[in-house]
Amino acid sequence: MALIVKKFGGSSVATTEKIMHVAKRILSEKKPGDQVVVVVSAMGDTTDNLIELATGITKDPYEYTREMDMLLTTGEQVSIALLAMAFKTLGQPAISLTGKLAGMETNDVHTKGRIVDIKPDRVHAELAKGNVVVVAGFQGCDAQGDPVTLGRGGSDTSAVALAGALKADTCEIFTDVDGVYSADPRVVKGARKMKEITYNEMLEMARLGAGVMQPRSVEMGEYFKIPIHVRSTFTTEPGTIIREDYTMEDKDFVIRGVAHDKDVAKIAVLGIPNTPGIAHEIFSALADAHIDVDMIVQSIRNVEKNVTDMVFTVSATDLPRAKEVVDKVADKLSAVGVLVEEDVAKVSIVGAGMLGNPGIAARMFGALSKAGINIDIISTSEISISCLVKRTQLNEAVNAIHDEFFPKKG
Amino acid sequence: MALIVKKFGGSSVATTEKIMHVAKRILSEKKPGDQVVVVVSAMGDTTDNLIELATGITKDPYEYTREMDMLLTTGEQVSIALLAMAFKTLGQPAISLTGKLAGMETNDVHTKGRIVDIKPDRVHAELAKGNVVVVAGFQGCDAQGDPVTLGRGGSDTSAVALAGALKADTCEIFTDVDGVYSADPRVVKGARKMKEITYNEMLEMARLGAGVMQPRSVEMGEYFKIPIHVRSTFTTEPGTIIREDYTMEDKDFVIRGVAHDKDVAKIAVLGIPNTPGIAHEIFSALADAHIDVDMIVQSIRNVEKNVTDMVFTVSATDLPRAKEVVDKVADKLSAVGVLVEEDVAKVSIVGAGMLGNPGIAARMFGALSKAGINIDIISTSEISISCLVKRTQLNEAVNAIHDEFFPKKG
Repeated sequence: MALIVKKFGGSSVATTEKIMHVAKRILSEKKPGDQVVVVVSAMGDTTDNLIELATGITKDPYEYTREMDMLLTTGEQVSIALLAMAFKTLGQPAISLTGKLAGMETNDVHTKGRIVDIKPDRVHAELAKGNVVVVAGFQGCDAQGDPVTLGRGGSDTSAVALAGALKADTCEIFTDVDGVYSADPRVVKGARKMKEITYNEMLEMARLGAGVMQPRSVEMGEYFKIPIHVRSTFTTEPGTIIREDYTMEDKDFVIRGVAHDKDVAKIAVLGIPNTPGIAHEIFSALADAHIDVDMIVQSIRNVEKNVTDMVFTVSATDLPRAKEVVDKVADKLSAVGVLVEEDVAKVSIVGAGMLGNPGIAARMFGALSKAGINIDIISTSEISISCLVKRTQLNEAVNAIHDEFFPKKG
Repeated sequence: MALIVKKFGGSSVATTEKIMHVAKRILSEKKPGDQVVVVVSAMGDTTDNLIELATGITKDPYEYTREMDMLLTTGEQVSIALLAMAFKTLGQPAISLTGKLAGMETNDVHTKGRIVDIKPDRVHAELAKGNVVVVAGFQGCDAQGDPVTLGRGGSDTSAVALAGALKADTCEIFTDVDGVYSADPRVVKGARKMKEITYNEMLEMARLGAGVMQPRSVEMGEYFKIPIHVRSTFTTEPGTIIREDYTMEDKDFVIRGVAHDKDVAKIAVLGIPNTPGIAHEIFSALADAHIDVDMIVQSIRNVEKNVTDMVFTVSATDLPRAKEVVDKVADKLSAVGVLVEEDVAKVSIVGAGMLGNPGIAARMFGALSKAGINIDIISTSEISISCLVKRTQLNEAVNAIHDEFFPKKG
């Protein structure tokens, strides 16, 4: 007997046929005595259609965030009602609960709410009656009782947080991929599905460009120590379990995966005086403009003149705004010039195992060198190493590194 | 300065253009300092479309009434969000409230809920902030907080009940007719729009077939003593005010209106022994089958044999079931026979003024007689007189009576 939270996204419940399919699948996996909570998103394009409808009233409906939440929360309310009905037609007692009824309390930052508390008394009560409980994802209510949506990836966060509050045994996230891979399978043919990965590794993978799970939901899993099972909607194969630590059998590899990110651009501020406060000047100006800076390298250009170069990366989408900000600061600092490079990309390895294993960085650089790939910038964290390379060489770089750490079998 | 509740039905908010129109119209009539609450239904065909969607899960979704309410309450939630946005785009602060947020508490009879209490604290608070408050009609929540819909005519009931709880000055019901007429304008060319009508007269008109307002909402108005102004969505002309008593100027006519009903069938049980309990036997059998009986006449067929006929009317839709029930009882009572007539209709006059004015019945019968129309059955209440006539003569009957009591001008 277990308490399991299962989350299905909008594409899994896009039609009434698919909703029936989800209900049947859940019942086929339910063991006698299991308590099951299902978190669902709005059906398919519902949210987009509601936004479209609102643009009939005003060009920018998101100006009115509270009313957008009133509007958008209807999307999940429709899918939970239909899914609960589907269970009932199959003979399984079930009940639908909005985020509010399920006790999901949020702050009042409409359209970008954050869960502040969960009071799942009603969920427990309905489970105790033998119901499958169908909960609206992506939504909760603020202290006034007004509906609030959670923003991007919100349904995953709802599911994991609810699993935590319910002290569930596991939280299963059903998606269109069947787990977390050692590299993007579209780039690396031999990419392997990981049986397990730690919360920290998953967060680092996400930060470095691997987009299976929204970071907030992984953080929520870590906070509540709830294992998150990422698996496919379309097969019954096990996927990848995100948890605090590995079980024995899956400790074979020193790294967990190779991540990559093409949304990168490099900015170099050349020939600035190497005096205290220079870095602060540049990066506080960027922070004021809400531009995130990723890799940073400072290198001495001319020791005698005490002149330095400051090189860093931003996301490619932020580049135009970043250039504007940096040009102004560079003028003020009498820099020699500002260079911009857009044809770059970042390749990273992630793994808690690299802590206290100094050979790993060397193996990564060696693999790139053997493949004739030049490294532009290197940055490291406790559980990752990233290299900036030419964007045209990215796929080659990912494959070379993957081959080094996940040698082909046979 | 007044507190006004205005109710717009689904056809008035069927598109975003119409929603903008409703918002503009309300603002054009709003005087400085007025507090306005707007109760709206779901947009156009939304409710039907949601029911259709549910039939993708199960043939008879109304088997699952709680889940139907979870589904259907989204309809009004969409329209309140959009209407509140519409006000805001016009520069008018506004906020949308679901039935639950507006404090509409119901029993837990899903899809046919009844309002048990209203706690409009939030509505008052939002009005005090200068908001137009947009409330979802047709819905409330039960003691558990679960959404409940009110059943047919529910939005009118929501509006009038909310007006009562808010101690509003008036409740305006916007519909596709522009008021209550002295007769159906499709039948009587010279039908006059009444300036005023009492709750009791309106209830009697509704009971006798005039379908402008659902009886429950009129009862609610009477209970709270809230004047209900029935008026047109399409014009700014005043309509008809339903209130406790007339103001002076509108006391001209002794009757308020002529109502008619084609959904009538006559059943006659012939030649039954005139002994105590006979009426009970027949009508309790019908009551057990949930069949309403309207006009009843008992007449002596044969004094010497003490044999009687029992004649009554039921709604035409109930006739087949009623016939079945009556046939059984007639057998038991050894009746001579059961006759059924379907080509009948009922014409009625309604008016509190007829109390203590015995000449009115005579004038009604006289008008019918002059027009060569035979009266089959007569029944009376405190404020109405009804005659059963041949269905083919109904329009003629309505016009003859109307001409008698509302003589053509000039």
